[in-house]
Amino acid sequence: MPKLRVDSFTISLDGYAVGPNQRLDAPFGDGTEGLHDWMFATRTARAGQGLDGGEDGLDDERVARHGEGAGATIMGRNMFGPFRGPWEDESWKGWWGDNPPYHNDVFVLTHHERPTFHLEGGNVFHFVDATPGAVLKEAFAAAGGKDVLLAGGAATIRQFLRAGLVDELNLVIAPILVGGGERLFEDLDDALQRYEVTEMISSKTVTHVRLARRADPAPDA
Amino acid sequence: MPKLRVDSFTISLDGYAVGPNQRLDAPFGDGTEGLHDWMFATRTARAGQGLDGGEDGLDDERVARHGEGAGATIMGRNMFGPFRGPWEDESWKGWWGDNPPYHNDVFVLTHHERPTFHLEGGNVFHFVDATPGAVLKEAFAAAGGKDVLLAGGAATIRQFLRAGLVDELNLVIAPILVGGGERLFEDLDDALQRYEVTEMISSKTVTHVRLARRADPAPDA
Repeated sequence: MPKLRVDSFTISLDGYAVGPNQRLDAPFGDGTEGLHDWMFATRTARAGQGLDGGEDGLDDERVARHGEGAGATIMGRNMFGPFRGPWEDESWKGWWGDNPPYHNDVFVLTHHERPTFHLEGGNVFHFVDATPGAVLKEAFAAAGGKDVLLAGGAATIRQFLRAGLVDELNLVIAPILVGGGERLFEDLDDALQRYEVTEMISSKTVTHVRLARRADPAPDA
Repeated sequence: MPKLRVDSFTISLDGYAVGPNQRLDAPFGDGTEGLHDWMFATRTARAGQGLDGGEDGLDDERVARHGEGAGATIMGRNMFGPFRGPWEDESWKGWWGDNPPYHNDVFVLTHHERPTFHLEGGNVFHFVDATPGAVLKEAFAAAGGKDVLLAGGAATIRQFLRAGLVDELNLVIAPILVGGGERLFEDLDDALQRYEVTEMISSKTVTHVRLARRADPAPDA
């Protein structure tokens, strides 16, 4: 069965995915310096930027596998861009330049729809005002039997967790203290009772954690 | 210089030190089953209970070093017992039986003072209504040049962090999802800017993390 997966979603030791005041020149908000250094330091990430060298090993394996086998992507509107509310214009095409790293159909959850657009590398951005379940159905259809990657951000992942739709949640805990902002583990009611931690392993730099659905869920989950 | 240390204070993956509804028959509250299993499974903890066997390695090393070299202890009143408000009687002597594991002067922070009492093994419990700074001064005096162990709970550690008094904070992240309760990393204002993560390492079971004061603190910390 194809899965809805979160891959290497990074949170700080104190639990924050982003700091306060996200904006165009600080996509992850204040106090998040270093949060994703583990990723940029890998051989795979460096190669993607045309650079030699970089870290091998566990972190690199995880970066290399990010989105592997996924045939569609879902993200929240706040991950797509720094703007909130109605689109002032539609010139913003995301943070990722002409050839974003998704290479499939990307469904952006938003209350403010806009026309689908195409970028290089098979990237097609759709804007959908729908429930998590309805978007996921569309994404699975687009994925043609492959997994769907739930890219983020934290609020969108929480929304899918609360709806019981996430099959596998791969997290990275970075040794950074952000001090405030948006948490992943917040307002989840009993949603986490459906999950168990199936892996917790440290590289030299960060800790990788995998949550998967319980084979035997708690009685009231 | 003697330090104020927190040793192997365990939090869940989602950040909770205790769940909701702490009470006499559930000292860590609801949903915390397994939170301290890593500790009870070690050779050192088992030997303390007269049992053979147990896990060696990193977890065991940390349990063996818990409180090592400390000459006094500080804890919050909610760690000392499940009762809140004025003492109804003074028969409660803590969770630890006749010979608690501290073996030194234990200062219990409380707004409801009661007489000092002595237990076996050099355990002397004092009840102090004072600021963190004043209690720490007393504890350092009692420790006679040794470190002071800040035992917990979360609210008490936060209080000492906010006051800038903690020198070293050793945490354990357990692969458990509690879903609610009391967080360690909450309401700390800018206190964490004084700290950096100096170690993050996984055993088979948990992740050990050390926070220490920054040699070069952030300008506004």
